[in-house]
Amino acid sequence: MAALDLWTDGMARAAIIEFVERVTTPGGDDHVPPAERVAVFDNDGTLWCEKPMPIQLDFILRRLAAMADQDPELRTRQPWQAAYTRDYGWLGQLITSHYQGDDSELPVLAAGILQAFAGITVDDFEAQADAFLRSTQHPTLGRGYLTCAYRPMVQLLGYLEANGFANYIASGGGRDFMRPISQEVYGIPRQRVIGSSTTLAWEPDEGGGRIIRKPELDVVDDGPAKPVRIWSRVGRRPLLAAGNSNGDLPMLAFTGQPGRPSLRLLVLHDDPAREFDYTSGAEHALQQARRHGWTVVSMEHDWRVVFAETPL
Amino acid sequence: MAALDLWTDGMARAAIIEFVERVTTPGGDDHVPPAERVAVFDNDGTLWCEKPMPIQLDFILRRLAAMADQDPELRTRQPWQAAYTRDYGWLGQLITSHYQGDDSELPVLAAGILQAFAGITVDDFEAQADAFLRSTQHPTLGRGYLTCAYRPMVQLLGYLEANGFANYIASGGGRDFMRPISQEVYGIPRQRVIGSSTTLAWEPDEGGGRIIRKPELDVVDDGPAKPVRIWSRVGRRPLLAAGNSNGDLPMLAFTGQPGRPSLRLLVLHDDPAREFDYTSGAEHALQQARRHGWTVVSMEHDWRVVFAETPL
Repeated sequence: MAALDLWTDGMARAAIIEFVERVTTPGGDDHVPPAERVAVFDNDGTLWCEKPMPIQLDFILRRLAAMADQDPELRTRQPWQAAYTRDYGWLGQLITSHYQGDDSELPVLAAGILQAFAGITVDDFEAQADAFLRSTQHPTLGRGYLTCAYRPMVQLLGYLEANGFANYIASGGGRDFMRPISQEVYGIPRQRVIGSSTTLAWEPDEGGGRIIRKPELDVVDDGPAKPVRIWSRVGRRPLLAAGNSNGDLPMLAFTGQPGRPSLRLLVLHDDPAREFDYTSGAEHALQQARRHGWTVVSMEHDWRVVFAETPL
Repeated sequence: MAALDLWTDGMARAAIIEFVERVTTPGGDDHVPPAERVAVFDNDGTLWCEKPMPIQLDFILRRLAAMADQDPELRTRQPWQAAYTRDYGWLGQLITSHYQGDDSELPVLAAGILQAFAGITVDDFEAQADAFLRSTQHPTLGRGYLTCAYRPMVQLLGYLEANGFANYIASGGGRDFMRPISQEVYGIPRQRVIGSSTTLAWEPDEGGGRIIRKPELDVVDDGPAKPVRIWSRVGRRPLLAAGNSNGDLPMLAFTGQPGRPSLRLLVLHDDPAREFDYTSGAEHALQQARRHGWTVVSMEHDWRVVFAETPL
């Protein structure tokens, strides 16, 4: 079987195979020892679907709606009001503004998000995330969220791993939200999931202590935080990075170094029939990709399939 | 060759071997799958020597002295004054106070430490740390710093790895200080080094951007921060933890869970002939070890050798 057979015989597939062969050919000029083969992947919109809203936002909104269901006073305050009345306009505008560089309304949402899971243990949070991801349908695609991963990207992860790469998720989404399913969905073990995080605190108890989520933001792993977070966790520059939005630009830039092989992939959502069609939030990334010759991956043209055939 | 032959035939060695056999015996009640076999190690005083001062403190003091050499005004201010005049009394008192829970003078030292390497890239910092560790002699032991690792502990790391464990360093010392030598000295790859950190920032440039050290503390990986940092990085509770001081107590506590095998090791410095003899800063840890039946490792009685035979 040919490598990456879920990819069409186009430039993206050729660029990946050519890069991996250069890096792995013993004695070659661009050979890189396995320990240094690090690949980093954004998650939302790069490894799985992020429309009509990031999967984690659905998780949070359901929790906020449940809180407002219990406490009528919350129904008059954002973001509980939007969650309770399913006012996706308020949220959509907030996300669009974020990608345009305007985060003035973001603290309102952030405060709600931080309250939504405050005070619970990391184990309880993980159990809730896991149950949500296994039981919830995507709102429009007619499939469960766990089958919203892009199969060609999952195949790419396996191809890289088979060639000695260590794959990491470097996501703007929540680290602890992805961890329960990262091995199963992507083959990426939980210690290789890097993402946004809330502040945690250890509290002693009779059985080894518990780690509690505090209502404080720790790190938003987006934009210039991505290279810092990758360095802090991995201690190396990646050789390969894949993203799909402006927030991935610093990570994509960081991946290239003079005199070292690198591959930068930018997933382009141009496939309204099978997924979605949008460039909002990716304008600068697409500009930079064209300017620097990074590899744009067209969902429509480069992928034979997008999702697994059998929906949940 | 018997396992752990650098350890005497005592209770500590027996406890380790018995624990590892329980965890790895297929079908046994306490069997743990390899992916969940996580072991965490404090560094200073647990994997290598921390007296008469932590190795990294020597590194920092030499840098502060060099700064004071360039700038006479600094010679009148702490911590530059102590570094420049080699006034170890001021520093020793500060460390003793820290272990006794009094950190009132610590900000003075911290401010100096943060200034010492501010504004340089992580690559430059690593090169300086690496050069220092390879070229500097321990002040009293007559050996280079790189040979100040405890051979029985290095052997333990290898034994655990051979039994499917992933070993992590969870140190109060600086993560980026240990990374250049962790593979060579301990067989622990750089991505498994967890430790204290300064704030980093990514700055774009023509070649992928640079990561710069800022004069701000990020995380002091000591005390209750250790379990949080371990969870954040690994996403699992460890099965085995080894430490030597009060700052390791939360990590040691976190390692035990009802219904799961665990091993807690506390290195006791009781060997003035071969290393040092002190319990200062470890009083509570020793109390807890006795109370909970953790395994105290006596350097004098449990280790056949301490250091490598051939000094640098």
